[in-house]
Amino acid sequence: MNSNVFERLESSVRSYCRTFPTVFTRASGSRIHDARGNSYIDFLAGAGTLNYGHNHPALKEALLEYVADDNIVHSLDLHTAAKQRFLETFESLVLKPRNMRYVMQFTGPTGTNAVEAALKVARKATGRTNVIAFTNGFHGVTLGALACTGNRHHRGAAGVDPAGVNRLPYDGYLGDGIDTTAYLDKLLGDNSSGVDLPAAVIVETVQGEGGINSASAQWLRHLERVCRKHRVLLIIDDIQAGCGRTGSFFSFEEAGIRPDIITLSKSLSGFGLPMAVVLMKPALDCWEPGEHNGTFRGHNLAFITATRALETFWTDDRLSLAVQRKGEQVGERLAALAQRFPTLEARGRGLMRGLRTPGEEYATEIAAACFDQGLIVETCGPRDDVLKVLCPLTIPDDELGLGLDIIERNVVRRMERDGKRNARVAAGVFRP
Amino acid sequence: MNSNVFERLESSVRSYCRTFPTVFTRASGSRIHDARGNSYIDFLAGAGTLNYGHNHPALKEALLEYVADDNIVHSLDLHTAAKQRFLETFESLVLKPRNMRYVMQFTGPTGTNAVEAALKVARKATGRTNVIAFTNGFHGVTLGALACTGNRHHRGAAGVDPAGVNRLPYDGYLGDGIDTTAYLDKLLGDNSSGVDLPAAVIVETVQGEGGINSASAQWLRHLERVCRKHRVLLIIDDIQAGCGRTGSFFSFEEAGIRPDIITLSKSLSGFGLPMAVVLMKPALDCWEPGEHNGTFRGHNLAFITATRALETFWTDDRLSLAVQRKGEQVGERLAALAQRFPTLEARGRGLMRGLRTPGEEYATEIAAACFDQGLIVETCGPRDDVLKVLCPLTIPDDELGLGLDIIERNVVRRMERDGKRNARVAAGVFRP
Amino acid sequence: MNSNVFERLESSVRSYCRTFPTVFTRASGSRIHDARGNSYIDFLAGAGTLNYGHNHPALKEALLEYVADDNIVHSLDLHTAAKQRFLETFESLVLKPRNMRYVMQFTGPTGTNAVEAALKVARKATGRTNVIAFTNGFHGVTLGALACTGNRHHRGAAGVDPAGVNRLPYDGYLGDGIDTTAYLDKLLGDNSSGVDLPAAVIVETVQGEGGINSASAQWLRHLERVCRKHRVLLIIDDIQAGCGRTGSFFSFEEAGIRPDIITLSKSLSGFGLPMAVVLMKPALDCWEPGEHNGTFRGHNLAFITATRALETFWTDDRLSLAVQRKGEQVGERLAALAQRFPTLEARGRGLMRGLRTPGEEYATEIAAACFDQGLIVETCGPRDDVLKVLCPLTIPDDELGLGLDIIERNVVRRMERDGKRNARVAAGVFRP
Amino acid sequence: MNSNVFERLESSVRSYCRTFPTVFTRASGSRIHDARGNSYIDFLAGAGTLNYGHNHPALKEALLEYVADDNIVHSLDLHTAAKQRFLETFESLVLKPRNMRYVMQFTGPTGTNAVEAALKVARKATGRTNVIAFTNGFHGVTLGALACTGNRHHRGAAGVDPAGVNRLPYDGYLGDGIDTTAYLDKLLGDNSSGVDLPAAVIVETVQGEGGINSASAQWLRHLERVCRKHRVLLIIDDIQAGCGRTGSFFSFEEAGIRPDIITLSKSLSGFGLPMAVVLMKPALDCWEPGEHNGTFRGHNLAFITATRALETFWTDDRLSLAVQRKGEQVGERLAALAQRFPTLEARGRGLMRGLRTPGEEYATEIAAACFDQGLIVETCGPRDDVLKVLCPLTIPDDELGLGLDIIERNVVRRMERDGKRNARVAAGVFRP
Repeated sequence: MNSNVFERLESSVRSYCRTFPTVFTRASGSRIHDARGNSYIDFLAGAGTLNYGHNHPALKEALLEYVADDNIVHSLDLHTAAKQRFLETFESLVLKPRNMRYVMQFTGPTGTNAVEAALKVARKATGRTNVIAFTNGFHGVTLGALACTGNRHHRGAAGVDPAGVNRLPYDGYLGDGIDTTAYLDKLLGDNSSGVDLPAAVIVETVQGEGGINSASAQWLRHLERVCRKHRVLLIIDDIQAGCGRTGSFFSFEEAGIRPDIITLSKSLSGFGLPMAVVLMKPALDCWEPGEHNGTFRGHNLAFITATRALETFWTDDRLSLAVQRKGEQVGERLAALAQRFPTLEARGRGLMRGLRTPGEEYATEIAAACFDQGLIVETCGPRDDVLKVLCPLTIPDDELGLGLDIIERNVVRRMERDGKRNARVAAGVFRP
Repeated sequence: MNSNVFERLESSVRSYCRTFPTVFTRASGSRIHDARGNSYIDFLAGAGTLNYGHNHPALKEALLEYVADDNIVHSLDLHTAAKQRFLETFESLVLKPRNMRYVMQFTGPTGTNAVEAALKVARKATGRTNVIAFTNGFHGVTLGALACTGNRHHRGAAGVDPAGVNRLPYDGYLGDGIDTTAYLDKLLGDNSSGVDLPAAVIVETVQGEGGINSASAQWLRHLERVCRKHRVLLIIDDIQAGCGRTGSFFSFEEAGIRPDIITLSKSLSGFGLPMAVVLMKPALDCWEPGEHNGTFRGHNLAFITATRALETFWTDDRLSLAVQRKGEQVGERLAALAQRFPTLEARGRGLMRGLRTPGEEYATEIAAACFDQGLIVETCGPRDDVLKVLCPLTIPDDELGLGLDIIERNVVRRMERDGKRNARVAAGVFRP
Repeated sequence: MNSNVFERLESSVRSYCRTFPTVFTRASGSRIHDARGNSYIDFLAGAGTLNYGHNHPALKEALLEYVADDNIVHSLDLHTAAKQRFLETFESLVLKPRNMRYVMQFTGPTGTNAVEAALKVARKATGRTNVIAFTNGFHGVTLGALACTGNRHHRGAAGVDPAGVNRLPYDGYLGDGIDTTAYLDKLLGDNSSGVDLPAAVIVETVQGEGGINSASAQWLRHLERVCRKHRVLLIIDDIQAGCGRTGSFFSFEEAGIRPDIITLSKSLSGFGLPMAVVLMKPALDCWEPGEHNGTFRGHNLAFITATRALETFWTDDRLSLAVQRKGEQVGERLAALAQRFPTLEARGRGLMRGLRTPGEEYATEIAAACFDQGLIVETCGPRDDVLKVLCPLTIPDDELGLGLDIIERNVVRRMERDGKRNARVAAGVFRP
Repeated sequence: MNSNVFERLESSVRSYCRTFPTVFTRASGSRIHDARGNSYIDFLAGAGTLNYGHNHPALKEALLEYVADDNIVHSLDLHTAAKQRFLETFESLVLKPRNMRYVMQFTGPTGTNAVEAALKVARKATGRTNVIAFTNGFHGVTLGALACTGNRHHRGAAGVDPAGVNRLPYDGYLGDGIDTTAYLDKLLGDNSSGVDLPAAVIVETVQGEGGINSASAQWLRHLERVCRKHRVLLIIDDIQAGCGRTGSFFSFEEAGIRPDIITLSKSLSGFGLPMAVVLMKPALDCWEPGEHNGTFRGHNLAFITATRALETFWTDDRLSLAVQRKGEQVGERLAALAQRFPTLEARGRGLMRGLRTPGEEYATEIAAACFDQGLIVETCGPRDDVLKVLCPLTIPDDELGLGLDIIERNVVRRMERDGKRNARVAAGVFRP
């Protein structure tokens, strides 16, 4: 019998644990510790779930107090005091200041469940079935959401053909100078384009899994305009880019657009607890009671930490400004590397940043070296060739600097090895 | 502006809160309290999520300790000490004693995500797309699972046609004396039946949402035999009936069958925390790393309470015996009502019980009266005509009796009103 | 280079030519001749396309005259004199005498195109997508029709999952004494049956490819009643059983039902020329112009022969009576065989008859022996174990008798070989 | 009762007869006559089915002789002498001179059936489900083919969601200077493009229904190259553009490409008789016997006329040269109109030509005026704004000139009315 319980009992589907092969035990802020006594700076941040770091004291305090006092933990979609406070707080701290009128649907507490609900309500409200999704998009792996997800690795596991989605090129996909929303506009206006009039367009403002591709604010505005023109709903999937990751609470605020439907999850609870919501304009709320349900829609511990997170971080613009500042710092460090090694490319905005390397073998090797040196950073993109820098938004400056130093050191080392090899090849010393 | 934040901000999809219109605040054991100071006996139990009651002290203690100590909360599918202990405990307390060899996949922490993963892996392992599901089955509402769910209310909201599923009649659906597995056997063996050879059959041993329909142990054995004969996988969806609800840990133990794949969720964490797993025979574990993923696969708070729940309740057979005893008690009380009023029908096994009334208006009225008198009990079934008695397994005898008294009182009251009316009609006093 | 042009140039998909490996040249009535000078009695009749035999002189005359005179051959869906005469004749000889009010849609001239159109208009008229088809049904192999076809051989070649169809057991499929329309009734009336309310039920009154299974008149009436009750359309696919094959023009006349939609093809042109129509009740005719189109909707040569066929055979009941008489004769001969050899089973009605043998190897061997002796007869059914007796309706008595003699001789020979072998085994002389 | 049998009995789906409201009776060459004694020049030519004109004497003679002599008319997929001669003639006159090695599958005798078979065999041979089709493409209206067809009018009648097809922009769709095959290349090479690796690309070299859009020879070569690079099959749907319509027998000969699969129908029989074939490279012929079947695969009258058509027109290059010459003549006349009225656009190649007008109301009015003056010409394109000039290839020069004169006259009249109106508006005389 295999003495390792993970290998013995856990399905081969496990993934991150292969890249970061240790047993983690404790964590706080942007630091995470393992059973062997090692400590790591966390640039993974739960793939965008820990925007406020691990075990933030203010959130932890609220959670402990709530649990200790025998408050309601699980409530289906019953009314609870915890949900009430979350709704009121979200309204006063997020919606009202942005002059946004939306109703909220609590779905099963994962992003993919929120996407499924968003697609359903968009289809129900419009009476259409088609949905437009974009190249390199990621929206989850349950069947409805998976149809919108671009990755063949995930799509290939669907088991049945994911239906009801047409694929359009994301901003920049057809090269510079081509506005891909013009193509969408033409397709929608053409009665024999073969692209049926869709219920909705679903899009991420920054594609996380897709390799840290950012849509420009202008492109997002054009996209909104095309949607309005053809009376198609615009769904912003803000599961990874939302909750402050790009600076503002919603990632689309910079563009000044007003999506019809918004999905949020990941960092919404602020503490890593499962939670997901769909925001929709009131006129779209055509649900009948219970049409879309789920056992864990009422995860009150998440309501509690989410409320405290909003109170802690979103009553003023300090977090936003910090994200902006640190984001620029990360961007500059990555840009400097890209300038030094032209096969690299710096990507992203806010604290959602990436460095595209020449290939998966580069990114993988660099991430592994970083891990050995105390930094957790993952890779992403269609070819897994992009280092994904997604530290907690609350990371102290020194730890951020330390993490970036580790990245820089290992990137340089890897790229210079190439350089030397190329020089030797050029000098005839080495034959590849 | 609507002064009620729920009405103002929450989508019309909310459902339970319409039946039990109050704001709940605290709970412990089988008691739940609201903001107006009312206390209720809870025969809803989170629709089967709170088998060990609300805020069980042993689980609460483990949770508080874990959170207080800055342990890992969110971990994607990284290895953590909490997950390790859960795996070891599940192996030693659940799998080994039952001589079961399975690997475990942690999916997004909702039942529907587990069902999606189970369907995918079954399709991948067999290379087939078709799946057999049963009349009145419920397996979730994300698109892949929804295709298996029978309810038109949920199916109608799909937005696209749920594909890849054929429907077969559940045990008893074609009337007494007809073994519906023989029909399945014929279809699978017939080259022009029109039912393509399926990857899997997915079935609940007791259909909860479907109206508390129990499959007999013999039918389950026949089903397993038909599956083996045609090399089709057998998936038991034990999300609602598992974790002790019918007495044994798994609901299919009574039948002595060995499913290829098992889904668990709801009461698995024991504390109402989101958690879901897929168990599969090792030979089926054909997943490639990360093929099915999700942000909240590593919800360590749930691992902690789940581990403690196993340690508290599954080291001996006391809980099982108690469920058996209380289940019989509930069964007898419901049977007595059914004997007294022949239009009623008692259903279910263990502590998964139901009382079918003559129609939705009966069940709804009785449930509402119960609520007024301090008992929370929901309705279910295709016509919403079944009272669903799903108390915590740990309910004290006196509270169980009290709850049953309330049900009895209101059932009798409603049925006798009919009786009097019928008598008056018969006597010519009243003309309907 | 292969000297056989068929093997050299024709796809491996060719099929009948493998069973009857010769090159056919000329034919008339129920006789067909090959290039080697052999003559065969034709009990295949173009799989039901040549109800009036090969090259019927009256039809041939009309055809020659029409072509010689430079009349319109191809007309899309333009009005032509030939189409006009066909419409008038069909109205006066088929519809009016039966008091039927239907409009006619000329589709692409194959049965499967007609089925596709029928499904579309049923879905359009009802706004629903689901369709009910039956075990062992055959409705064509283009994707929409294929979803209704039961055979795995054909379904497996679909390439994509055929969607939108639920499968129900045909008359007799669940054994004697079980009326499968009661199951359908229950499913349609059950809100969580998992079978969505369908647009239509599509059914053959006698399943040709499915093995010559006849639905009883009573079952058809029950089916119609269930359809009416749930406001579901009833489509009779009369492509093989129609045009007199069972005695009456439509095969459902015996049952006295009135389908909402009827598909006809095969023997409609009477001369083997491609032609297909959909008949629908006027209220269902919700087509917009050109929504369903096709190049060969206006095959005027077929209109000409179809008109002449109606005039020749359907002005009185002589053909019907002859079919009845000959059908009984065939039935009796097959029944006698089944009585003599209890593993045989006689099936069918009218001149749509079959003899089920113990297995494909029997049916194949018998058909091959018949071919050697001058009779063309094919096999059908899910296991290809049914001899399918489908002679021209106009076959002279002596040729019919001759054909039946050949069948009888070869059936007896094959079955007696079994008998002798069994006897030897029983006597210990032979060990299998 | 409506005295018009067409209105009384024919479904509202009828279409061409609304544009050309008369009853046609006889025809020969490029002339067609109606019951009122009118004669028309035929620029519709059965939507490309009558490339050799109506009732060509050589073909008619072969047909009459064949029918008169009691040869086989209907043969399923049995071998017949007529089929044998067709195969040999197609091989010697079409395949061999072009050095093409293909096997032939006779499908149900309509274009859409051939497309269904082509899609199936491509999916079967590759084991993939996705297919790439293009904007404005038309491939038929049975469900499998319909998924490839672009027109919303047709797609909207599908009844279920047509699945398994991704849509790419046709040559020129993204504007001049953008090679849309580069986009396809990028999508296929990108693991998270969301466009699953397809079985095949299906394309028309000139889109007939789509508005007479011609792909350039270079674009077709690039498309072939992208297909080869990613091991994707290339299907040329040559149903409308083939059989000499663009000059060469196949429309893709100009581009020098070698498709993996080719569909032919429409003018293949040469006489307007239903016929369709799929040509595929021998290595792709993975069909099992009978997997794709159909009653009218063996329409021997069509084999006879098709053979005679090949013998009459394809033994030398006279027809090709004539098409080239007449095509240029048509092209020049249309170009001259487009030069005179800049809102017009001349399109197409060979004798597949179109004139795009400013809108449907123009094209419809012009076509109606032409009809009144003795010319049948239809409209096409997503907006029905393109006059489609598709005369028989064999049209005498004088009739071609006459037809073009009628078009010119009516186009000029319509456009000048605009001009005068614009002038009056400009002069302030008229207020629109």
